[in-house]
This record gives sequence, structure tokens and C-alpha cells, in this order.
Amino acid sequence: MSTFKQLRLMITIELAARGRDDLPIWSSYIVGVSARSSVEGRMSSETKSTPTKFGVALFPGFQALDVFGPLDALNNLSDSTPLEFIVLAATLDPVNTKVNGPGRIGQSIVPTHTFDNCPEDLEVLLVPGGFGARDSAILTPVAEFVKRIFPKLQYLLTVCTGSAIVARSGILDGKRATSNKRSWEWATAQGPAVHWVRQARWVVDGNIWTSSGVSAGIDLMFAFIADRYGEGVAKQLADRAEYVRNTDSSSDPLALQVTKECGEQVYERDSFLSCSTTPWGVGIRETSHKWALSILSAGSFRT
Amino acid sequence: MSTFKQLRLMITIELAARGRDDLPIWSSYIVGVSARSSVEGRMSSETKSTPTKFGVALFPGFQALDVFGPLDALNNLSDSTPLEFIVLAATLDPVNTKVNGPGRIGQSIVPTHTFDNCPEDLEVLLVPGGFGARDSAILTPVAEFVKRIFPKLQYLLTVCTGSAIVARSGILDGKRATSNKRSWEWATAQGPAVHWVRQARWVVDGNIWTSSGVSAGIDLMFAFIADRYGEGVAKQLADRAEYVRNTDSSSDPLALQVTKECGEQVYERDSFLSCSTTPWGVGIRETSHKWALSILSAGSFRT
Repeated sequence: MSTFKQLRLMITIELAARGRDDLPIWSSYIVGVSARSSVEGRMSSETKSTPTKFGVALFPGFQALDVFGPLDALNNLSDSTPLEFIVLAATLDPVNTKVNGPGRIGQSIVPTHTFDNCPEDLEVLLVPGGFGARDSAILTPVAEFVKRIFPKLQYLLTVCTGSAIVARSGILDGKRATSNKRSWEWATAQGPAVHWVRQARWVVDGNIWTSSGVSAGIDLMFAFIADRYGEGVAKQLADRAEYVRNTDSSSDPLALQVTKECGEQVYERDSFLSCSTTPWGVGIRETSHKWALSILSAGSFRT
Repeated sequence: MSTFKQLRLMITIELAARGRDDLPIWSSYIVGVSARSSVEGRMSSETKSTPTKFGVALFPGFQALDVFGPLDALNNLSDSTPLEFIVLAATLDPVNTKVNGPGRIGQSIVPTHTFDNCPEDLEVLLVPGGFGARDSAILTPVAEFVKRIFPKLQYLLTVCTGSAIVARSGILDGKRATSNKRSWEWATAQGPAVHWVRQARWVVDGNIWTSSGVSAGIDLMFAFIADRYGEGVAKQLADRAEYVRNTDSSSDPLALQVTKECGEQVYERDSFLSCSTTPWGVGIRETSHKWALSILSAGSFRT
């Protein structure tokens, strides 16, 4: 055993016998590197990159959980693995989850960089979805930024209708991808040349990872962490978040549910117009006006 | 059928046949009220309040998913139910999820109100957890604010170690509550007079709802929405987020896992010092130094 390995083992054992409050900052990095190296030892001979420079592209009306589901896992990963993180937007003004106009509540996030001054060495970009992207004045700058930065990235991750934004940039043409199941028609229309995979919690094609709607982004990020940093690290982070992962990318209960309820050919127009669970859909069922539901099934919702 | 009911039914059917882009803002409220009324019709005769004025209390080093898991559901609820929402903090400076010092990445949220100028008519307050609360200089102002505002609230909701913050205010004394399973010892020490429930995804005692760690806040919020606005509304929102809910408050896989791995009497000291899944725990197992794991089990981690 080399002197360095002996030293690392001694530090590991020493740290294991002490409380966290006693640990200097640098020790978590040594321990993190130690843990990651041992996990990577199990991996195949394929060269695995472990990116450290992450960013998210925000826009007004982004979906909060699309962003903070995955980022919560990344934030926790940074306790043991040194990471850098930037929040990108069109301007440095705080970006609200609310689309303009009354009727919806929201919260504001502070960007750290604009799309125009994104560092050239960004390695991983996360693109969330959200109703703001239905406005082309909001969608276009994000899609243009993604198109410009993509060749420099190691990985591009999207959540929900984030894949629709990326599809508009043309990057997904000819690739497999998925998106939000209740915004399927709109999302897939943004990229007619994309091989859209309907039943998938997430899809990986090359260095592009796309997830299904909203909460699926959490499973995507844990899968990405498992792939890049090791399954042990992903499990530790999920346990810490008390999160029961969906580790099967093809397991997609909602896609099955929508198909079962609406028939193979009936898809929704957007999140407000699914055939089964709109606010008024609930009302219709509760008051037993099933003929009204039939109108939905037989009418303009059929693709 | 009354004229009003006929009018409402006509509007409902008319809206169902049109695309969302055509809908005026007010229509979603009519539809929302229609759906909620019909769901509430099924409820027991117990008087149910449906609060509309929500807020969250932030502090430096709050856990991102503790906040944005529940808020994502609330944001979506506000599409059909008029809500108001405020972000509270000690000052109006943006609040970062990162605790001070190097080594952890984070994102900043913009408060709308300070603890000192919280509106008197706030109805529901959400208190997240996070490592920032380990610093009493950060915890104390939040606990004092909660103690002051609680008598005016309809409901107090906590996620993760948010219950530890509230416990410090004394509000939970004599009540049942739960908290983060990997920070159990620290959290429960903040309220020795609280009846802590170890195996629970969430606990309701009177008008106080406390959840287990991080992701459990999502299930808590859907349960709260189901209780206040109806199960149909909660299901619609969860489906929209493509989220598979845990609807059983006593189903807590992580509590069982920790007990199984560590024995009945072995709990962790904090999130960095669980007996099974610390970064160095992974490393130890991977290198087969099981005797080192035995040291953990037999040593200072035993309560």
C-alpha cells in the first residue's frame, strides 16, 4: 500500500470516529474523494467524467420543482464533492416562477449570470419547464442560449417541458427524448424531428438526459449522479432526502394512467386540458355528468 | 335546478370545449370554485376552512426541497384557487440555501416581507428545515417569529427539521410531531417535551402538521390540500406533477431502513453521521473494511 493510500485510510478511519462539528472543511473533500474513488473502482472501464461546473437556465414562469428537485440533490452532493453552480437568466433581475398576470402565486430566484456572460467552461446545464415557455418571447432567448452553449457542454439535462425548449433549438432532432405527459401535444410539437418516447420517466441519448414532468426531474438527477458519481453516492443522497427513488427509467405510471383513462389516441392539449383531471374534470365526475366527459373524449382532445 | 346552477353548468361545458389560451383569467376561478364545491359536497359535516393566505419562513441554509416541494403544489393550486403568498425572512436580503463558508453550492430566494412586518392575517405558515438552523443565531429569530405569529395562524406546517425550529419555540410541547430521520437526535433534543413520533411520513396534531425529512414535505402538502380542498384536487395536482404520492402518514420506509441497518437503539448524530450512508460509510463498505463499520455501530453513534 502506498504512503498516500495509507494516509488516506488513516484519515478516513479517524474521521469516522469523530463528530462532524470537529471536522475542518477540507476533510469533507478528502473523504468525498475517497468515497468516490472507491465507488468508481467498481465501474466499467468506460471513461467516466465527474463534472463539477453546473448551471440552470431560468425564465419567468419556470416550474419550481423542475428546478429545486434536482438542485436539492446537487446542493447536498456539494457537501462531499466540490462543485460550482450558477443561475443563468436573460437578465440579472430576479426570476419569478409566476407567469405574468394575476391569479398565480410565485417565488423569485436571483440569477448569478446572464445568458450572454455564461462562463465558457460550464459543464452541465439544467433546463426546466414551465408555463412561461408557452410565450415565445420567453422561450426564444432560452432556446437560443442552449443552442449556443450546447457544443461546449459535457451534459445537457432537461426536466418536464424543458425538453420542448431544447427541441426548439434543433439540438434534439433525430434523438430520443421525453417530456411532460400532460403537456405532450404542445411539447412534442416543438420538435417534430425528435424521437419522442412517451412511456419513460427519463431518457438518455448521448450526453442529453430528458425527464418526464416535474417530479421526474428528481429521479433523473439521482440517476445522473448514480451514473457519474456512483450508485452509492446517489443512494446516500436519496436516503438523506428521505426520497424513494424510481430507478427504472421506463417505469412511468402516469403515462400508463393517461393511456388507460383516455385511450391510446387521446392526449391532452396542455396541463389545464387533460381528459381526466382538469379542475372541471373533477367537477364533472363528481356531479356524474359523464356525458360531458364523453364530449371531451370524442371532441377536440383527440389527436 | 337554480338559474345560478344552470349558468355554472353551461360555463363549465363551454370551457371544456375550448383551449386554455382562449380562457379569460376569471374563468379559472369560476371553474375552480365549481370543482371545489362539488368535492366539498362529499365531505363530512365538519366545518372545513380553505385558507388562502400562505407564507414560508426562510433562513440562511434552508433546505431547497423542503420549501419548493410543497410550494410547487401550492403554486399549481393557485391556478384554480385564488391564493396569496409571501416569503418571510429576518431581512429583505435574498436568502441563500447555502450555509456560510466554502464547500456548498446554493441558490438565493427573494423575501417579500420581514418577520417584523408579517401581515396579521396570514393563515398558513410553512417552516422548512436545513443546516442553517444548527446555528442558534439563525434559528432563534425564526423560532421567536413562529412563537409570536402562531396564535394568529389557522395552520402551521413544518418540513424536516423545521419541526425542531418550532419545537424550540415551545409550541410543540405536549404535542405529537415528527422530523428528519437522519437528524433525529439533534431535532428531538430541541423539544424534550414533544411527543416525537419516529415512524411517520407526517403527523397531524390539531392545527400543526409536521413532516419527516425533505421529500416528505411534498406528501405533507398533498395531504393538507386533500384535507382542506378535497382529495380530487390533491390528486389532480399530484398527477400534474407526475408525482406518486405516499398517502399513508404512517408509511415511512426510511425509518424502518435506519432501524434495520443500525439496530433499534442506534440513531445517527446528524445527516453527516448516519451509521450507514455517510460518504465515508460508502467508502468503508466498498473497500470491505467492515470492522470500521463495526466501530461506527459500537461506538459513539449509540444513543
